[in-house]
Amino acid sequence: MNISLQGWDDTIVALATAPGIGAIGVIRVSGPKTFEVINDLFPSKDLSQQASHSIHVGMLKDNGILLDEVVLSLFKNPKSYTGEDVIEISCHGSPFIQEKIIQAIASRGIRMAKPGEFTQRAFLKGKLDLTQAEAVADLIASNSEASQRAALHTMRGGFSNDLKQLRESLIGFSALIELELDFSQEDVEFADRTQFKNLIASLQNATQQLIDSFKLGNVIKNGVQVAIIGKPNAGKSTLLNTLLNDNRAIVSDIAGTTRDTIEEVLNIEGVLFRLIDTAGIREHTQDSIEQIGVSKSKEKMRSAQVVLYLFDVEEMGVTELENIVKEFEFEKLNYFLVGNKADHAREIAIEKFKQFNNCIFISAKSNQHIDELKSMLVKKTITGNINSESTIVTNARHHQALLQLATSLDEVSNGLENRIPGDLLALDIRQCLHHLGTITGQITHEDQLDFIFSKFCIGK
Amino acid sequence: MNISLQGWDDTIVALATAPGIGAIGVIRVSGPKTFEVINDLFPSKDLSQQASHSIHVGMLKDNGILLDEVVLSLFKNPKSYTGEDVIEISCHGSPFIQEKIIQAIASRGIRMAKPGEFTQRAFLKGKLDLTQAEAVADLIASNSEASQRAALHTMRGGFSNDLKQLRESLIGFSALIELELDFSQEDVEFADRTQFKNLIASLQNATQQLIDSFKLGNVIKNGVQVAIIGKPNAGKSTLLNTLLNDNRAIVSDIAGTTRDTIEEVLNIEGVLFRLIDTAGIREHTQDSIEQIGVSKSKEKMRSAQVVLYLFDVEEMGVTELENIVKEFEFEKLNYFLVGNKADHAREIAIEKFKQFNNCIFISAKSNQHIDELKSMLVKKTITGNINSESTIVTNARHHQALLQLATSLDEVSNGLENRIPGDLLALDIRQCLHHLGTITGQITHEDQLDFIFSKFCIGK
Repeated sequence: MNISLQGWDDTIVALATAPGIGAIGVIRVSGPKTFEVINDLFPSKDLSQQASHSIHVGMLKDNGILLDEVVLSLFKNPKSYTGEDVIEISCHGSPFIQEKIIQAIASRGIRMAKPGEFTQRAFLKGKLDLTQAEAVADLIASNSEASQRAALHTMRGGFSNDLKQLRESLIGFSALIELELDFSQEDVEFADRTQFKNLIASLQNATQQLIDSFKLGNVIKNGVQVAIIGKPNAGKSTLLNTLLNDNRAIVSDIAGTTRDTIEEVLNIEGVLFRLIDTAGIREHTQDSIEQIGVSKSKEKMRSAQVVLYLFDVEEMGVTELENIVKEFEFEKLNYFLVGNKADHAREIAIEKFKQFNNCIFISAKSNQHIDELKSMLVKKTITGNINSESTIVTNARHHQALLQLATSLDEVSNGLENRIPGDLLALDIRQCLHHLGTITGQITHEDQLDFIFSKFCIGK
Repeated sequence: MNISLQGWDDTIVALATAPGIGAIGVIRVSGPKTFEVINDLFPSKDLSQQASHSIHVGMLKDNGILLDEVVLSLFKNPKSYTGEDVIEISCHGSPFIQEKIIQAIASRGIRMAKPGEFTQRAFLKGKLDLTQAEAVADLIASNSEASQRAALHTMRGGFSNDLKQLRESLIGFSALIELELDFSQEDVEFADRTQFKNLIASLQNATQQLIDSFKLGNVIKNGVQVAIIGKPNAGKSTLLNTLLNDNRAIVSDIAGTTRDTIEEVLNIEGVLFRLIDTAGIREHTQDSIEQIGVSKSKEKMRSAQVVLYLFDVEEMGVTELENIVKEFEFEKLNYFLVGNKADHAREIAIEKFKQFNNCIFISAKSNQHIDELKSMLVKKTITGNINSESTIVTNARHHQALLQLATSLDEVSNGLENRIPGDLLALDIRQCLHHLGTITGQITHEDQLDFIFSKFCIGK
């Protein structure tokens, strides 16, 4: 590992639970001075003599002044999250008390942890690679079945294994090329070039699969923006209610998880759909799509991953809908049409819209064909199987590095094709290994690490 | 204990840490089914075979579907907070994951805990008396040195011991009276009535001390409201800045602890002072106190525990100040006068105000005599020693019961004085014991308990 370990031998402390008042709060201490310092605050027994993974209840005292009655969990190096000596202090959930305990610890030469520093230490101690460490932050931020599953898969080393296989193949390949180089004077080719080409093709294929998975991964991590638009009385509010009453995202019951209150969040098949309120569009619309042309509303539509156009089947004209579709096509929107109030409509009213692709018929009020609508939403946005056990790349940094890897693999492939000298080929392969290494953190800079971990929360 | 234990033999679950995103969250499970249910979710080992106070790391799975990697802390009945089997699950701090884990537990026949129910169970199992249980909630809500210390003292049984002594004296007294009753035909007096009177007097004295401590206790628990008033340019803002830069309450650094942002919170000698913004008064003031007469502002002044009147010593006239003082006296305010800009004032300007009681001279700008001002604030509000190890009653319910106890003790005392029959005296003594019992919870109703614990946070 080409990271300097300087400055990582001190001891750190931070509140690990969410800020605010709760029944309990947990303060985490990690580093070589952990036991010495907490022992000084916990007079009732010598903690260094206690077993790892044991729990101790008692009073925490700062120079004789009672701080709190606490529960201590001991984790001894290397059997801890960070790989260092760790003590977790479970105290009463008063921010004032938590602050006082942290101050008492800090006054004994312990430093306040930076965001993500506990996980950064776990990475530096080799307990996790970088993809696993980054997945910890994703797991904490996860707010749907799919984002949780993808983060857990990566945290448990699923992605690392894929990368390890790529790396091993490349190293094997590289070794053969370098062997050739040693004998380059003799113009020997050790390996069958066709076999090489096949190997590179399969590496390109595997890399492309990972790159492709990012489209789904991004959706999983950030949710799908859906703009629901339509004229007044098309039944938009009724549809929203029907959708939300049915499948309201579990997470919306918990304070602080929904960041934008203007959106309604809907959980379909474990993926979050963010339904964007396009009331602004509706207000300015009279009866034609041209009037949607308010720039701000158009922007909303364009930034959405799907546009759901809702209309009343009895009220909508075929020519009018054709114009709307033309506008959508012109804007290159990913749209579909939803004919509402189909339960009370005449057969002929529905029949005339059957010429439109991407059109389904529902009744929001009587909850008819809502499942079909949901399938349509999923179909329009999700490519790939979110339930598969295969890796889904959700991290933009990984995606970027994989794109660079693909470029380098293309160069190797072209090099093979053009029979470039082995030493140049070896350089390209080293480049591939470099890109792989940046993903797992085998190759990294301290700055980059600091940047990655700075996005973590404090205490993790 | 005259509480029915029905309905307390099930198992409960709740999130114990503050809601929102943190590095970790802790879910608490308590009751007889705890180990059975968590075992079902934790396939890697049989938890029931593990020691109490041990820690186990592993995967939590719901019917084979991975929920999270967690750390379990085991506490076996009766060695736990509630006295029941308890497992604390330390999971990743995503509200979504916490919710999923709680749902997986709840789906196995575990009930969601009511607010304070873990502590209520600890009380019902005899691990804590009611004063100690109530102190747990106070401790979690504590936001100053003094409120924390008072809550810790009570939680550790300090108040309980005082009450126990009162109770034992009363029971001894009662026993003698009842013995007399048995021999009442023979007109025997077993004990010296003077000795009785002395005993009751000392009980009255001890009760009164506890009652008196509530004045301080209330201040400690709720802080002291201070209205700072004065004419424009008296130097109010400068004074506020000087006070706040010096001694800003630690708690104000932590989100969610200051409830009213209009107030500035100042921590002096471990007590919170809430400085009320009286800008409203200032705006309407020209040059006399009469113009303070805006009813809303007057109300603010009246509701404050102290009024600090700030004036510029060079600008203020003696007659004017006399009128202001008259108004304060008329309103029965607890006020004091602070002459500002004393450092640049002529000797004579200060000299003329020396006739006023409750008047000190400072310079807010050059930080002169600010400590004197702080002492004045403390002196004006705090009677009693907040640093003493004696009990300070902070709970209004306890204060109420102590007042009732005092009334009953008065009746006993009067009864002795008037030589009323022993059986009537015994009734009065039983009434005293009843009031004591309601404080500690030896005598209580389920409704009252539910009310007390409903004010706790969930998970405690």
